[in-house]
Amino acid sequence: MKLCRYGTRGAEKPGLIDAEGRVRDLSAHVADLTPDTLSQSSLEKLAVIDPASLPLADGDLRYGPPVAGTGKFVAIGLNYADHAAESNLPIPSEPVVFNKWVNCIQGPDDPVVIPKNSEKTDWEVELGVVIGTRASHVDEADALAHVAGYCVVNDVSERHWQTERGPTWDKGKGFPTFGPVGPWLVTSDEVGDPQALSMWLSVNGKRVQDGTTRTMIFSVAKIVAYCSQFMTLEPGDIITTGTPPGVGLGQKPAPWYLKAGDIVELGIEKLGEQRQEFVAWAPKR
Amino acid sequence: MKLCRYGTRGAEKPGLIDAEGRVRDLSAHVADLTPDTLSQSSLEKLAVIDPASLPLADGDLRYGPPVAGTGKFVAIGLNYADHAAESNLPIPSEPVVFNKWVNCIQGPDDPVVIPKNSEKTDWEVELGVVIGTRASHVDEADALAHVAGYCVVNDVSERHWQTERGPTWDKGKGFPTFGPVGPWLVTSDEVGDPQALSMWLSVNGKRVQDGTTRTMIFSVAKIVAYCSQFMTLEPGDIITTGTPPGVGLGQKPAPWYLKAGDIVELGIEKLGEQRQEFVAWAPKR
Repeated sequence: MKLCRYGTRGAEKPGLIDAEGRVRDLSAHVADLTPDTLSQSSLEKLAVIDPASLPLADGDLRYGPPVAGTGKFVAIGLNYADHAAESNLPIPSEPVVFNKWVNCIQGPDDPVVIPKNSEKTDWEVELGVVIGTRASHVDEADALAHVAGYCVVNDVSERHWQTERGPTWDKGKGFPTFGPVGPWLVTSDEVGDPQALSMWLSVNGKRVQDGTTRTMIFSVAKIVAYCSQFMTLEPGDIITTGTPPGVGLGQKPAPWYLKAGDIVELGIEKLGEQRQEFVAWAPKR
Repeated sequence: MKLCRYGTRGAEKPGLIDAEGRVRDLSAHVADLTPDTLSQSSLEKLAVIDPASLPLADGDLRYGPPVAGTGKFVAIGLNYADHAAESNLPIPSEPVVFNKWVNCIQGPDDPVVIPKNSEKTDWEVELGVVIGTRASHVDEADALAHVAGYCVVNDVSERHWQTERGPTWDKGKGFPTFGPVGPWLVTSDEVGDPQALSMWLSVNGKRVQDGTTRTMIFSVAKIVAYCSQFMTLEPGDIITTGTPPGVGLGQKPAPWYLKAGDIVELGIEKLGEQRQEFVAWAPKR
């Protein structure tokens, strides 16, 4: 099942994607897609609805993030061996965990604002994991049962603030608009094995990232179990699981970064695609 | 004005502290203290209420965190020169910023769970800053106008996970229960200068921290302005601003840490006091 939230920013309605890829209005069945609606039993109630019984969505078909009210936006760094190499960093012996400030989350196709004076705004296509049920000290074998589904994330990153302004990465990862999520939350049953998804990202039509979740260092199950040792994962939390090679920082012969007017497109097998225009910072945004 | 939330965990009511220090029930005037109720105009509406007109609180007088729905729990590291020295770290040239996972926030007197297998659970009395109005790229001169008020925070920290498990600190700072906040949100007008507050912390009655916000390296105004460059601060966000010397990590001749049964008490001038029992981790908490 593919779930979404569509419409004007801040007033999105819940939707379901039908077999033809059209958005159907779910609001007669659920007020919104929130942490409260992500349990297995809640999702099963939606899964039995005949899509043909739902009205086709009209009005603004902009996608919002597929879940409202995310409490934590957890991020994993250097989770693909080749990406660690291009970043000139050692392969980690355990997951690197950092934070994206949660109010950077936005729709998958909303414009991304290049921060004021930024010269190192970079892209990262990533598999996003949406938690469905609370997880604390879960075993790796049980971890995926706590996952409601998956989504595309662009872990937009400002490398100067990430790496040159102190010991933690958090300054460079949560600028406003740095968290495009969606278009859909695709439920776990429909995705199947999260470690067998191809993924890609293009800048102005040039393919720069081309990877697969098969080459993750730490699997989704491992990451969920690992994080649940030192935080309580809650429904609606999103864990973004690292990026394969091909970010701006890793370009040869020299790094290059995004500038105003650039178009970034990205996608993950089964999870849909995003498209963002990167725009200049302006005082009144 | 001193605001609080009191009662059973998850079902707290809003309260006001009267001149005699008693809790008065505010729920006839505001449903809860949330990000929506922290603007200057909202607070002014509460400020004109005669406390004597409000019923005295009855029932469970446990304090919850004084604001519900905090979206970001931002933390500043090494913000007192002497604490940087005791941590064997250089005085930072700009604020060190990290994250506490927001669902670690709890009431000021709730028990704190020592993480499973932890041998380095530590205390940090800190001045918490509660944002009242959205702040993005604000100047230092305007920054305090975005602050609704102040509160006591114990930035409980697990030093092994903070410093020995990878490049970011976030793993060690957001364990469940690691964010005691309160008892009160004291509004800015009542606090006056946030850089003139004494603060202290005791473990089992032994005074270990004894400081003042006068010795902060980066002032509250500087921190708010600084953070607003790379995140949008929202009403209800809490910034905890670093700790003075005297944490367990800095004890001489050798560091010592908290164990089950220890009682931590802490307070800040004008902002009230906290008292926590530290308890052992158990599987079903």
